[in-house]
Amino acid sequence: MGVSEQLSELKEKIDVRLKKFFDARIKEVEIVDPSAVEMMKLLQNYTLRGGKRVRAALIYHGYRCFKKGMEEELLKAAMSIELIQSYLLIHDDVIDRDDLRRSGPTIHKSYKDIHLERFDKKDPHHFGNSMAIMAGDILSSLATQLLAYSNFSKNARLKAIIKLNQVIHKVVYGEVMDILSEVKNGMSENDIRTIYKLKTASYTIEGPLIIGAILANASYEDMRLLSEYAVPLGEAFQVYDDILGLYGDEKSLGKPIGSDIVEGKMTLLMQKAFDKADKKQKAALKKALGNRELTKKQLDEVRSIVKGTGSLDYSIKLAEQLVRKSRRAMQRADFRPESKDFLINVTDYLIRRTY
Amino acid sequence: MGVSEQLSELKEKIDVRLKKFFDARIKEVEIVDPSAVEMMKLLQNYTLRGGKRVRAALIYHGYRCFKKGMEEELLKAAMSIELIQSYLLIHDDVIDRDDLRRSGPTIHKSYKDIHLERFDKKDPHHFGNSMAIMAGDILSSLATQLLAYSNFSKNARLKAIIKLNQVIHKVVYGEVMDILSEVKNGMSENDIRTIYKLKTASYTIEGPLIIGAILANASYEDMRLLSEYAVPLGEAFQVYDDILGLYGDEKSLGKPIGSDIVEGKMTLLMQKAFDKADKKQKAALKKALGNRELTKKQLDEVRSIVKGTGSLDYSIKLAEQLVRKSRRAMQRADFRPESKDFLINVTDYLIRRTY
Repeated sequence: MGVSEQLSELKEKIDVRLKKFFDARIKEVEIVDPSAVEMMKLLQNYTLRGGKRVRAALIYHGYRCFKKGMEEELLKAAMSIELIQSYLLIHDDVIDRDDLRRSGPTIHKSYKDIHLERFDKKDPHHFGNSMAIMAGDILSSLATQLLAYSNFSKNARLKAIIKLNQVIHKVVYGEVMDILSEVKNGMSENDIRTIYKLKTASYTIEGPLIIGAILANASYEDMRLLSEYAVPLGEAFQVYDDILGLYGDEKSLGKPIGSDIVEGKMTLLMQKAFDKADKKQKAALKKALGNRELTKKQLDEVRSIVKGTGSLDYSIKLAEQLVRKSRRAMQRADFRPESKDFLINVTDYLIRRTY
Repeated sequence: MGVSEQLSELKEKIDVRLKKFFDARIKEVEIVDPSAVEMMKLLQNYTLRGGKRVRAALIYHGYRCFKKGMEEELLKAAMSIELIQSYLLIHDDVIDRDDLRRSGPTIHKSYKDIHLERFDKKDPHHFGNSMAIMAGDILSSLATQLLAYSNFSKNARLKAIIKLNQVIHKVVYGEVMDILSEVKNGMSENDIRTIYKLKTASYTIEGPLIIGAILANASYEDMRLLSEYAVPLGEAFQVYDDILGLYGDEKSLGKPIGSDIVEGKMTLLMQKAFDKADKKQKAALKKALGNRELTKKQLDEVRSIVKGTGSLDYSIKLAEQLVRKSRRAMQRADFRPESKDFLINVTDYLIRRTY
């Protein structure tokens, strides 16, 4: 079975359980208030609507590198990171003012629409944002609950909760730097790569793997090896994600092409392009970055400049080099072969998404 | 020593440790990025600037009802709820668009000012809100870390983390109902009292006491008794808080008088006044509620209507009755006398703040 099939199979298992989990929460809050039920249903829909469950798969294999068994409990622990992912995305959507995510409305957009439909007082936009902040907060504490209630040793559970919260810290610091990158004039390659490490490497790849390893009582050395594999892979994943965001297709992306540009986000792709651009190209890039009325023609021009300056090539080469580093680390590992193979092969999957 | 002195003494202990805790976090994030240091400093200032540490005191005495010792660890656990309090207030400030809290700028206001000072791109208001959402998220996970790292039995720590997250859920559902109360036309007394139970009784009084009791391995029956004491007291506390918000003084409140009215919040005080008001009074109340340009004269009129309709009396009587219920429950308890006395006497303190 290829990585893609393995991921699909795991995604199905996770999604069935996420659905059940939310069904139980919906039932639970019926005694609170209809507004809590409505929120939980929106959270269920938002969470189930998308996501490849890569982070869940990495918790799963982070554990399976070392141990068999505990399937049901492990899937529960794996679900927790998908709740965190929804939580972070919901707050991120507010920050980025994105109305579309996972091919559907974001939470603040759903609540904005609810306001427009039902209420005539106050500001629908602010109402939407307020409800989305709260909705995210709910998921954050549900994720901790899932780990706390799981059936691993108490020691493993506590350590996993600590790790999860460390990871949340890092991703939030990365987000803070990201927000600043949109208002600052220019960022260094170094700053951008710090953001990638905080927001993606630590959170998307390393964190989940280590949480899995913690639950399996892995040794310190084994966890270090996982980190050596995870950090460069995570960086590479983000670099490819940026490429997809500019050269991918909207349908498989689930959000508009060029949204990073529109939001004024300084990606490595843009930073290098700025670096190498001539005066006229620089002006065009500047005009496009953070422009909420960006035209299709302007976007095409940005794409051609990023290619023409060699920035696209630079990103692709950097990512390939990082992936090689990552694979080399994993090849040295003495882990259970099935999961070791999965981790080696998933590197190709993570970067070979269509663009 | 009276309750007020006991609280001050405990507040001092908590604040010294909160300061040290944040100092360590500031040091820790120096390697991340200057933006993380700046955020942590703002969080330290915001957290230390105010708060009577009532919630921390209730964790403390929730434990001390049953056990001596573990002073340092208990203070650590008590700090966690004050981090949660800052977290919730920061998100709440965004939702309520309050620029002033604890006699100083809210986090979103601080970041708005930073934007105005340093940056010329994008919207200072949205920037402030975005940073405040992230700042709150940081504190939420720091609070869990504090409990997870404490030195109580692993079982107690896990249970305390679970309880803390249950409490966060409730307070968020309460906040959601609160947000809705500002856009809906009218709310029943029942709805309003549900909000008080969720936002105040469970979160401010019951939650902290039970977390303390969990850490002391208290029996199920003892925890039930604590809840019987805590829930009516919490409701009464909120009712008095509403009264203070309309009849207190701005300086000791740390925020503008009548801000509930300006925000369009449906308090019990307003609900009863609406209920009993004549046509002309109703029109005046309606005009004031949610009016961001409320004049001093209009506010005075609202105060006189709330008094004249008997709504103020109704709230005072309800609160007194709830407090009696609460004290009766505690008088039955067979707890360590020092903490039992504290809990009986703190009821007066919680409701006899100047108004």
